[in-house]
Amino acid sequence: MAKQVFSQEDSKVRVNDGALRDTVKSIFERVGVPPEDADIGADVLVRADLMGVESHGVSNMLERYVVRYKSGVMNPRPKWRIIRETPGTATIDADQGLGVIIMPQAMEIAINKAKKVGVGMVTVGNSRHLGMAVYHAMVALKHDMIGVCMSSVRPTVLPSLGSEVRLGTNPIAVAAPAGEEPPFVFDAATSVVPDNKVDIVRRLGGNLFPGWIGDEHGTPIMESVPAPPRDGYQLLPLGSIPQTGAHKGYGLACVVDILCGGLSGSGYGAVRDTDTVAHSVTAYNIDAFLDVTRFKSMMDEWLRTLKETPPAPGNERVLVAGQMEWEAEQDRSANGIPLHKEVVQWFRDTCAEMEIPYILG
Amino acid sequence: MAKQVFSQEDSKVRVNDGALRDTVKSIFERVGVPPEDADIGADVLVRADLMGVESHGVSNMLERYVVRYKSGVMNPRPKWRIIRETPGTATIDADQGLGVIIMPQAMEIAINKAKKVGVGMVTVGNSRHLGMAVYHAMVALKHDMIGVCMSSVRPTVLPSLGSEVRLGTNPIAVAAPAGEEPPFVFDAATSVVPDNKVDIVRRLGGNLFPGWIGDEHGTPIMESVPAPPRDGYQLLPLGSIPQTGAHKGYGLACVVDILCGGLSGSGYGAVRDTDTVAHSVTAYNIDAFLDVTRFKSMMDEWLRTLKETPPAPGNERVLVAGQMEWEAEQDRSANGIPLHKEVVQWFRDTCAEMEIPYILG
Repeated sequence: MAKQVFSQEDSKVRVNDGALRDTVKSIFERVGVPPEDADIGADVLVRADLMGVESHGVSNMLERYVVRYKSGVMNPRPKWRIIRETPGTATIDADQGLGVIIMPQAMEIAINKAKKVGVGMVTVGNSRHLGMAVYHAMVALKHDMIGVCMSSVRPTVLPSLGSEVRLGTNPIAVAAPAGEEPPFVFDAATSVVPDNKVDIVRRLGGNLFPGWIGDEHGTPIMESVPAPPRDGYQLLPLGSIPQTGAHKGYGLACVVDILCGGLSGSGYGAVRDTDTVAHSVTAYNIDAFLDVTRFKSMMDEWLRTLKETPPAPGNERVLVAGQMEWEAEQDRSANGIPLHKEVVQWFRDTCAEMEIPYILG
Repeated sequence: MAKQVFSQEDSKVRVNDGALRDTVKSIFERVGVPPEDADIGADVLVRADLMGVESHGVSNMLERYVVRYKSGVMNPRPKWRIIRETPGTATIDADQGLGVIIMPQAMEIAINKAKKVGVGMVTVGNSRHLGMAVYHAMVALKHDMIGVCMSSVRPTVLPSLGSEVRLGTNPIAVAAPAGEEPPFVFDAATSVVPDNKVDIVRRLGGNLFPGWIGDEHGTPIMESVPAPPRDGYQLLPLGSIPQTGAHKGYGLACVVDILCGGLSGSGYGAVRDTDTVAHSVTAYNIDAFLDVTRFKSMMDEWLRTLKETPPAPGNERVLVAGQMEWEAEQDRSANGIPLHKEVVQWFRDTCAEMEIPYILG
């Protein structure tokens, strides 16, 4: 094991997060994104890498975004606008812009509403991928608010008992501030695993865990099997099979579809065009419900109670949502973000091609 | 199989829902609940039975409520009041009243706020059991709103990797209206199963399904085993084990704790006194986001698409959340609610003792 970790580390280079942010910003600008939007997009991607959420960081997403901007599937200068509004709500048409960039701004709108009426919810339709959903939820933290972000994405997940995909991995993300403890930061797909976990097993060899996928007929695979090719399986909803609550994961994915696809007017994952995604963000102003200091001290006490739970045999410790990401961020903001050498090479090549100074070392 | 069903039916008596509602109302009144509150409480309990949710109906809950009213753990005439309020939010102190009765009224407050500012959220602390959570969410339906209800209850569920319970079964319930289709009605504990599913297996014999419970040390039991005594197991969060997403069920239970226990000021399940529970209800005014007719026609199209999903081999059909409950309600409101003979006998005895006319036939 130790050797494997070493050899993985050997193939990685630690990169300064500031330099990475500047580089990503320049790349966004070169594909037509205005500077202030490029700033936001770079921060969202690099924050995912800082938090160790590499599936939503630069290595996994940026190249795809560049391709999709160039192909015209995504609009680099969207004229996104509020199409309906009340004191506590807004509905945004994203004009095919990247959710990564629009959603922090949508959350700012929700926050301003929550300052006035206690809670604010903004739905965003006609959009594209939003990156790490909890980034947008976390925007609420510095305002002493609880943030929620959801996204209704392209179907890859079976409904419980079904043979064809009808739901996206439809993530739910929630961030809540604490006092002395790091905030509660939760971000989870409503499927058992996302597609890229299956991809990683296929690439590295080894077997999938029972309950991750259904076969080509939709039957849940409850043995440990090698990863099938992408057209040979479908993802299962959280709960895996009816006996262990697959209807709950399925139902939660539906709730995300309703609160994002439904309330934005963009329609549901199963019935709309495949490029479109829809999102929602909600801000809860803690001060509207109780004193913020009291809320935070209750959070501290509770988070410590959870973390101090004696672990079950074989486990080192009990975690709380966001703790591993918080620890990764402490390390990576001090020591740099580890990027695969191939990713660094892609940056080198892309910077050369786009005539951007290469500063990643 | 047919024989077993017959013998189960043989031990049941079909009871008219109106007569049952009147009887339950009288029982509530005899333990000190005011008539208008007793009306609400009876409707919530009988609606659960109409929908086939017997775990939250008269047979499972009413006797417990009577005992707890008599022992003084619950206040039959609570002076519940709003202790903080904004245009979109309210915080209620329930004065140890029964959530079953207070929550439909809390939802009415949320609905009135959503009419004015698009969304309304009401948290309720210092409360007691709320019954079937989705009843309160469904109050929003007739106003063309989406309703959400959550409840933070007494810990019986292990955190992922832990050996001691820290979370309640903390349910999430969501109701959304459709046009011609029955509404979407979702109500699920964030544990794999609730306690009473284990109780039923213990009573009937047979084995638990792998992934339902952890043993007395917190280790998940991934084999099929007989139901242990209540002090010999703990419930597992949805996802069962880390490899299949137990951190997601655990995290969702935490979210419920934050939005109910935290935002009500009552504190979290793991750290407050065991009699107290906390809830929240939220109403989303669909018209604030888009035209209601458009939302409903999108819902119809999507719900039909889900239901028409070809089933995986061995399954008859794909269900949507609330469909089985809707079908049960059609049957039971026409043909009566099936109650076990022992339950009917309890009503007979209780009515005699409380000097209530017995009208259940």
